[in-house]
Amino acid sequence: MSFKLTILGCDSAIPTVDKQQTAQLLNVNERFFLIDCGENTQVQLRKYQLSFQRISHILISHLHGDHYYGLIGLITSMHLLGRKKELHIYAHEILKEIINVQLSASNTNLNYPLFFHVLPANEEKILFKDDNIEISNFLLDHTIDCSGFLFKEISSKREIIQKKIDEHKIPFDKIHEIKKGANYINENNQIINNNELTTLISNLHSYAYCSDTRFSSRIIPIISNVDILYHEATFSKELDERANETGHSTTKDAANIAKEANVKKLLIGHYSKRYKDLNMLLDESKQFFHNTFLTKEGDVFDFDSF
Amino acid sequence: MSFKLTILGCDSAIPTVDKQQTAQLLNVNERFFLIDCGENTQVQLRKYQLSFQRISHILISHLHGDHYYGLIGLITSMHLLGRKKELHIYAHEILKEIINVQLSASNTNLNYPLFFHVLPANEEKILFKDDNIEISNFLLDHTIDCSGFLFKEISSKREIIQKKIDEHKIPFDKIHEIKKGANYINENNQIINNNELTTLISNLHSYAYCSDTRFSSRIIPIISNVDILYHEATFSKELDERANETGHSTTKDAANIAKEANVKKLLIGHYSKRYKDLNMLLDESKQFFHNTFLTKEGDVFDFDSF
Repeated sequence: MSFKLTILGCDSAIPTVDKQQTAQLLNVNERFFLIDCGENTQVQLRKYQLSFQRISHILISHLHGDHYYGLIGLITSMHLLGRKKELHIYAHEILKEIINVQLSASNTNLNYPLFFHVLPANEEKILFKDDNIEISNFLLDHTIDCSGFLFKEISSKREIIQKKIDEHKIPFDKIHEIKKGANYINENNQIINNNELTTLISNLHSYAYCSDTRFSSRIIPIISNVDILYHEATFSKELDERANETGHSTTKDAANIAKEANVKKLLIGHYSKRYKDLNMLLDESKQFFHNTFLTKEGDVFDFDSF
Repeated sequence: MSFKLTILGCDSAIPTVDKQQTAQLLNVNERFFLIDCGENTQVQLRKYQLSFQRISHILISHLHGDHYYGLIGLITSMHLLGRKKELHIYAHEILKEIINVQLSASNTNLNYPLFFHVLPANEEKILFKDDNIEISNFLLDHTIDCSGFLFKEISSKREIIQKKIDEHKIPFDKIHEIKKGANYINENNQIINNNELTTLISNLHSYAYCSDTRFSSRIIPIISNVDILYHEATFSKELDERANETGHSTTKDAANIAKEANVKKLLIGHYSKRYKDLNMLLDESKQFFHNTFLTKEGDVFDFDSF
C-alpha cells in the first residue's frame, strides 16, 4: 500500500517569497489527508501537481494562522471548481464559526458536503478509521489548544507464513483462498486451521505529526515505534528558554522525543526565521538522534523506502 | 507629490502559481493605501520590496475571498513584526467579525491600534480626508455589496500665475510669500490681492478603482475625468451574458465606461482564467477606448508620467 508524505510548507510564523507555512499531504493508498494549511497552501498543491479535489480529510492542529489561514481559500476554490465530493475537517471548535462567517459574508452555499468534526481540546481519541488507516489525536503543550496526530495503517488481511507452505506441502492453487481466510485440508484429511498458516500483515506504516509544542514526555508512549515522526524544532538548543516561553521546541527536544519513543526516522521543521543555515539545526539534532532529516518544501518521504 | 500605483495581483477567483488575486498599493506622497488583499498579498508586498509596515489604510471593495483572504495574514504578520503604528481598515461590516473571531481563536491582542471603519452598503461618502488626499466610495453592481473607491489628490497650496509676475513686475524675493498667500504691494503702493496673482494647483492626480461590477452607467459622473481608471474586465465582449449573470464586465463594458467618463487612461484586470492570451482582451478594449493598458503583477503606474 502506498504511504507517502509530501511537505508543502515547513516554515514558521511569517511567510516570505521562499518560505511557506506549515502544510503536509499524506497519501495513504491514494486517499489524501491534508495536515495543517498555512496561507497559500492551495497554490503549493498546484505547484507540486497534487489535485486538491482528491483530498478527503483535512486536519488542523491548532488555530495559529500559520497553520490554517490557507484553509478558507482552499475550501472556496474546491467549490468554485465544482467539487461534489464530501470533505471532512477536523479542528478545534471555533474554526467552524470562522469558516461559516466567511461563507456567509460571500453568500456562498458550498456545492459539496462539508463535515466539521470538533477536535477535542482535552481528550485523546480515534478521529477516523476505515479499512486502511486509523487516525487519532494527542494533546501537545503549546500556548493555545494544540493536537498532534497519529496515523496508523491497519489491515485485516493476513499473509501466509512461508515455512508453513513447505511444512504442510500446500499446493500453489490453495494459497489464494488461505490468504483470504480458508483452512487447509491436507492429504490425510486433517484440517489445518488458518490461524496456524497465516499471520497479520506486520509491515504496516505509521506516522506521528507533532506541530507546535514544548518538549512533552507524555507523548512518548503514544508515538512510540512509529516509522516517521515529524516534530517541530523551531529553535537551536541554546534557545531553550525562548522555546519554553513561546511554547516551542529546540532541536534537542525533538531529537530526545524521537530517541525516547524509539522512532525510525525524525523529520524536523517550523524553523525560526533567524536560521539562514538549517544544516546547523540538522547537525544539532543528529547529535541526539542520528536518523534526523530536515523537511523542505517539495520533499516527498516514501514510507516504503526504509 | 508622488502618486504611484503598484499592481500586486490582478487575477480573478482562483490563485495559481503565476496568477495572484487582486491587490493594489497606492503611494500618495509616501503614504500607502492598500486596495483589496487577495490571499498571499503579504508575500507579494515582500516580493516587490514594499514595506507593509508603512501601509496606513486598507480598503476592501467586497467580501469575495479573492479580494480579502490575505488580510488576516497581513494583520497578523504586522503584529508579529512588532508594529506599533495604527492601521485603518475600510470594509463592509461583517469583516470586523471575521477578523475578531480569528484573533480570538489564536488568543491574539494586537500590539497596534486597529481601527475598523464600516463601509456603507447603500451610501456614497467621503471615507477619509487629509491635506493630500480625499477618498470616497461609490456603489458598484455586483452579486454582493461592492464598492469602488475614488482617490482625489487635494491641495490648499496655490501656484503663481506666471503672466501676473510680468504684468506687475513682481521681484523674485516676493514670490515665496505670495505663494504662501500674501498680497503684493507694488511700487505705487497699490495692493494687488493674492487671488489675482495665484490659482489653486491644477495638476492634481486622481484614481478610480472599480473592482467586481457589471456595466454601471451611474458611476460615470462620479469618476469622470480621472487620470487613471482601473475597471475589471473579466470577460471578452462576446460573453456579455455570462458577465451579466456573474456580476462582472466585459472589455467593451470597461472601455465604454472609460470613454463616457472621459478618463485619461484605463487599466483592465481580473481576467477570467479562460484567457491565455490577454492581448486579445487588450485589443478588444482598445477598439472602444484606445488608451487601455493591461495590468500585470509588478506593474507600476506613475501618475506623473502622462
